[in-house]
Amino acid sequence: MRKFLTFFLFQVSIIFTVSSLSAAQTADNLKARVIEIEVPAPALTGNLLETSDIQSAAVYLPPGYDEQPDRRYPVLYLLHGIFDNYGVWIENYDVPAILDRLILSREVPELIVIMPNGGNKYGGGYYRNSPVSGNWGDYVADDLVGFVDDNFRTLAGADSRALVGHSMGGYGALNLAMNHSGIFSVVWAISPCCLAANDDFSFGNDAWKRASAIKSHEDIQSLIEKRDFYPVATMGIVTAFSPDVNAPPLYGDFPFDIVRGEVNLDDPSYDRYLDALPSRQVRNSRNALRNLRGLAIGVGLGDQFLHIPTGTLEFSQRLGEERIPHRLDVYAGDHRQFVGERLETIILPWVVNRLIVIE
Amino acid sequence: MRKFLTFFLFQVSIIFTVSSLSAAQTADNLKARVIEIEVPAPALTGNLLETSDIQSAAVYLPPGYDEQPDRRYPVLYLLHGIFDNYGVWIENYDVPAILDRLILSREVPELIVIMPNGGNKYGGGYYRNSPVSGNWGDYVADDLVGFVDDNFRTLAGADSRALVGHSMGGYGALNLAMNHSGIFSVVWAISPCCLAANDDFSFGNDAWKRASAIKSHEDIQSLIEKRDFYPVATMGIVTAFSPDVNAPPLYGDFPFDIVRGEVNLDDPSYDRYLDALPSRQVRNSRNALRNLRGLAIGVGLGDQFLHIPTGTLEFSQRLGEERIPHRLDVYAGDHRQFVGERLETIILPWVVNRLIVIE
Amino acid sequence: MRKFLTFFLFQVSIIFTVSSLSAAQTADNLKARVIEIEVPAPALTGNLLETSDIQSAAVYLPPGYDEQPDRRYPVLYLLHGIFDNYGVWIENYDVPAILDRLILSREVPELIVIMPNGGNKYGGGYYRNSPVSGNWGDYVADDLVGFVDDNFRTLAGADSRALVGHSMGGYGALNLAMNHSGIFSVVWAISPCCLAANDDFSFGNDAWKRASAIKSHEDIQSLIEKRDFYPVATMGIVTAFSPDVNAPPLYGDFPFDIVRGEVNLDDPSYDRYLDALPSRQVRNSRNALRNLRGLAIGVGLGDQFLHIPTGTLEFSQRLGEERIPHRLDVYAGDHRQFVGERLETIILPWVVNRLIVIE
Amino acid sequence: MRKFLTFFLFQVSIIFTVSSLSAAQTADNLKARVIEIEVPAPALTGNLLETSDIQSAAVYLPPGYDEQPDRRYPVLYLLHGIFDNYGVWIENYDVPAILDRLILSREVPELIVIMPNGGNKYGGGYYRNSPVSGNWGDYVADDLVGFVDDNFRTLAGADSRALVGHSMGGYGALNLAMNHSGIFSVVWAISPCCLAANDDFSFGNDAWKRASAIKSHEDIQSLIEKRDFYPVATMGIVTAFSPDVNAPPLYGDFPFDIVRGEVNLDDPSYDRYLDALPSRQVRNSRNALRNLRGLAIGVGLGDQFLHIPTGTLEFSQRLGEERIPHRLDVYAGDHRQFVGERLETIILPWVVNRLIVIE
Repeated sequence: MRKFLTFFLFQVSIIFTVSSLSAAQTADNLKARVIEIEVPAPALTGNLLETSDIQSAAVYLPPGYDEQPDRRYPVLYLLHGIFDNYGVWIENYDVPAILDRLILSREVPELIVIMPNGGNKYGGGYYRNSPVSGNWGDYVADDLVGFVDDNFRTLAGADSRALVGHSMGGYGALNLAMNHSGIFSVVWAISPCCLAANDDFSFGNDAWKRASAIKSHEDIQSLIEKRDFYPVATMGIVTAFSPDVNAPPLYGDFPFDIVRGEVNLDDPSYDRYLDALPSRQVRNSRNALRNLRGLAIGVGLGDQFLHIPTGTLEFSQRLGEERIPHRLDVYAGDHRQFVGERLETIILPWVVNRLIVIE
Repeated sequence: MRKFLTFFLFQVSIIFTVSSLSAAQTADNLKARVIEIEVPAPALTGNLLETSDIQSAAVYLPPGYDEQPDRRYPVLYLLHGIFDNYGVWIENYDVPAILDRLILSREVPELIVIMPNGGNKYGGGYYRNSPVSGNWGDYVADDLVGFVDDNFRTLAGADSRALVGHSMGGYGALNLAMNHSGIFSVVWAISPCCLAANDDFSFGNDAWKRASAIKSHEDIQSLIEKRDFYPVATMGIVTAFSPDVNAPPLYGDFPFDIVRGEVNLDDPSYDRYLDALPSRQVRNSRNALRNLRGLAIGVGLGDQFLHIPTGTLEFSQRLGEERIPHRLDVYAGDHRQFVGERLETIILPWVVNRLIVIE
Repeated sequence: MRKFLTFFLFQVSIIFTVSSLSAAQTADNLKARVIEIEVPAPALTGNLLETSDIQSAAVYLPPGYDEQPDRRYPVLYLLHGIFDNYGVWIENYDVPAILDRLILSREVPELIVIMPNGGNKYGGGYYRNSPVSGNWGDYVADDLVGFVDDNFRTLAGADSRALVGHSMGGYGALNLAMNHSGIFSVVWAISPCCLAANDDFSFGNDAWKRASAIKSHEDIQSLIEKRDFYPVATMGIVTAFSPDVNAPPLYGDFPFDIVRGEVNLDDPSYDRYLDALPSRQVRNSRNALRNLRGLAIGVGLGDQFLHIPTGTLEFSQRLGEERIPHRLDVYAGDHRQFVGERLETIILPWVVNRLIVIE
Repeated sequence: MRKFLTFFLFQVSIIFTVSSLSAAQTADNLKARVIEIEVPAPALTGNLLETSDIQSAAVYLPPGYDEQPDRRYPVLYLLHGIFDNYGVWIENYDVPAILDRLILSREVPELIVIMPNGGNKYGGGYYRNSPVSGNWGDYVADDLVGFVDDNFRTLAGADSRALVGHSMGGYGALNLAMNHSGIFSVVWAISPCCLAANDDFSFGNDAWKRASAIKSHEDIQSLIEKRDFYPVATMGIVTAFSPDVNAPPLYGDFPFDIVRGEVNLDDPSYDRYLDALPSRQVRNSRNALRNLRGLAIGVGLGDQFLHIPTGTLEFSQRLGEERIPHRLDVYAGDHRQFVGERLETIILPWVVNRLIVIE
């Protein structure tokens, strides 16, 4: 969850110039470049939030891609957070330059990196399937991976395909590992949101009450204008995790009622909602998770979203109970401050070097 | 935490008529009565919230109190929740009539019941010691108990003295059991608040951000006028659990900063705050808790304050880890709906019959 | 798990005289009596441990049973622990006399109490279905309940049927509540064994290594002769929780190998074993458990079987996570010492008074 | 806990030839060497187990040590497991060759490595202070570190001093980090034993009963002759974690009694014992742990000592609750099989590169 204000300014002001992204001209004459692709997304067709079923993505092609026309490359997918788009990897975290440096220094082999979009009008689709917000899990696992394998010289097997996400994208990475198994074999979730219902991600958060008062698109527009993004984000969570196709115009099933200002849980909805969260899905997904070549989760203790450290620790514990190998990194830092640095020094070397890089 | 709106109307409208409380005139010619007392509270002297150091309390004297002038009685203390006063026991939960019935049917022996006040301008002092809100723990354990033993024919030992509280008072009952040991020997916490920092009692609750924006008494007055009581209650929590005598005019040390709308924890303050919560105090208090004649905690699963069920379960677990005998009741119900019924059918018989009732 | 030595002496020496059990001749001319019945147990047919498919049980008929030939009664089932039989309720815990007193004092209504046997040559069948030790869950839920309803004037619905068990029987009570729902509506597990794999019920217990060295019935006989009952009990656990019909002569699937004296887990077997334990079955059984009229678990902190307090606490926590109402009693005491006293003063009143007692 | 049988054979058969250890003669003309030192250990003086107060240790001096007589080096200490000595690092895990390779490839800077002994006649002193087994914590933190800094060209500050241990030594590393703060700044515990009382490290383990039956040194000798090492190891645990100077000849305070074959806990002793375990010491040590430059714990899910994975996961959780940065590695593997490989590829680079290596 990138800072909301920055995000909205950013979204308005950038004129996305693909060529400018490919800053990588080094002493070694690197010719890495980033291009934008338009990906058909049949998995999103029919979603009730008017999200397009053609989705943009950025693609990093490694320095040697053109010179070695027969070579195939492992692929890393990067999933961004809410109220963001693939630009965050490029503008904020400088991923192309990081990749250039890591490849140049041979800390990682050459690889292709795919940065899809995952946003919608409520901030994002959480890379999970929903009859309201669309089947974002299928989009990434099937539509996007298929498109990439069809259009680029990839090593098109799970053993050569990795997944890293941040915040909403960290959730997404774990969701895809658990519920779309066999597509990715190495997964790292950076400060993953939404793993367990506690702290600010609990209905005990006053913001949920305010969200449940939203009745129309006009209300949402008004909140956005007031820069009160929390209830808007909540609509994204509800449409992704607790959708109700029969509840126009907003199509969310809040698992509680507000009665005289207080939260009254609705038991069946609450069950359904809780069961959709990753910490409760570990047991049923244990074989998928055990079969990974690598699984890691990391979190800063100063994360502004308090549920992220506690949820990450709980998720690690659930992994341990099911005897699932994993790495947990708990560090001093907040939700965003070390994402770039950690990508370069820890995450990308760990992830990419676990992949099979030869045919 | 009684419903705020009801409370404020209630507080304005009642004209407290002590005689009307003593409705107990039964076929058996019961003469139980409730009187009001004024208790000197030196423990509150010098508090920074202008809370009076003379505190009212209601006293239930059992039917035979006047006829048997040499008889001494066990004593039960009842601690109410925030934004309330002792009237809640009488007006809402009908405790005098319950006591009359239990005594008449011989389900409990005759006893004296003390219902102190615990409120202040932020909703309450949490029956705990604070240099800002006053030493409410000492007030109950020392001032009030001493006054009662001096002025009524009590069995003046811990073995004959019990403590029951609801919500903030449930917290208070446990705090007194842990940190003022040797005064009460049987303790039941009904839907106790504030046992662990999670859900709505976590800084992840958006309401904390709004509370931390309060800068003056005028802000508080304005919130009360808008019936936005959550941030006001939060000031009560901060002044009780994280007081700062050097921070006028509100004297609270919020354990975080809000930076661009986000929570940034302040580690030393956060440590101090967390360590003050009961779930972290069980180990150090284990001998006091093991020595009780009875310890029970109960909670409704539909509690509107989501931290109360999770905190109660966590507290039970901490008790178990330290091998502390206790009863845990987890039932269908919300924060208030079964308080009266459970007092009559479960809590008072369990509590009072564990006391020594003869000299 | 009654003390093994006592048990074996007891089993040899008693001559079970049904008439002597019915000691209830009181001032009120109570004519309660205990009779023994032989119950067909088709659910056990074909078990591989040579357990008979005709099982004895004791039946307590209340004082007025004969005088009121049209009256129907609620029914309580009592499940004993390993290396025991129904005699433990009568000889050790004095249940018929307790029932007489409770009925006479009107603390509970008149009721029928059924005390089945649950033992086999390894100590017991754990009241759970197994292709090796037999379908003991079906035996109780179907064969026995059906037989009782056919042959006695019962109130033949779940709302009038309760289940209490001790140790192995405490496990059994919870297993029947979770996996044979709709038969019993009030359940109390006293010091229930086997809820979670920890302490002495973990493979970390050296006794498992010794058990896994058993290769023949002669080995078992030899252990019994040496009064080394732990490995024998372990055979009962393995045949009930991890049976293998293809592994004669002992038919157990130990979820580990012993390699040079050390435990090497076998992952698939271990998964299957762990998943069979109640603490991992709460989520899938939550609707059955929520629908009970009453659910309680109690344990003494000084239980000689260390996994019983920790497992009971963990089970309570799992119940709480799934928002399942229950009572937890944690008390000073060991595995057996307060069973009779607690049955009389706490358990039977709580259990029986939750049943529907009129047609 | 290295395999016992192997250990005893090994101890008898090797003739420890220091020169043979220094096999590092490479193309780069490396002249790393391992020497043995005798270290005065006043901290062990007066121990009741007749452990010598002069202790051997091995020292790895890096290739350039002699050529650069003014250069000072960071220092890594390695703590071995029970029933072992420093030879395990050299013979089993090939640490000198690993160091040579890492230094040659510049994956780590040149450093000094100290491998002390930590054994005694019960398997080991757990690198913790005990009036019975000796103050092994002080020995490492004070005597040994002081001796090394006096006799070798070290960078003699905590920022340049790291600590890695395996099994009992993993426990030791964490104990030193928590209770001897300010000496080491980077700590990695490999498969650390004894963090929490569960599974085979619980009194539920039958082996404790057998240990508590030991009454004399002759009993111990007899067990060793029968190669039944578990009860012997237990004597080591008791004398380190629950010592009793007034209980000759064995000086252990078993926190339970065995009554008719069953475990009866002794509450005060059990409290003392549990409180000595690391999972219960995290809160009080949080500032020491937060101040480390690096803290990591790793464990194989197939560890033969079942308490080690569960204890490591629990310890990670306690670290998280106190907001202590750390890395947790949970991997497929057993107690020993990947120790050497992980030292080379993961642990030593992570540890040594966190140290300050210049004056």
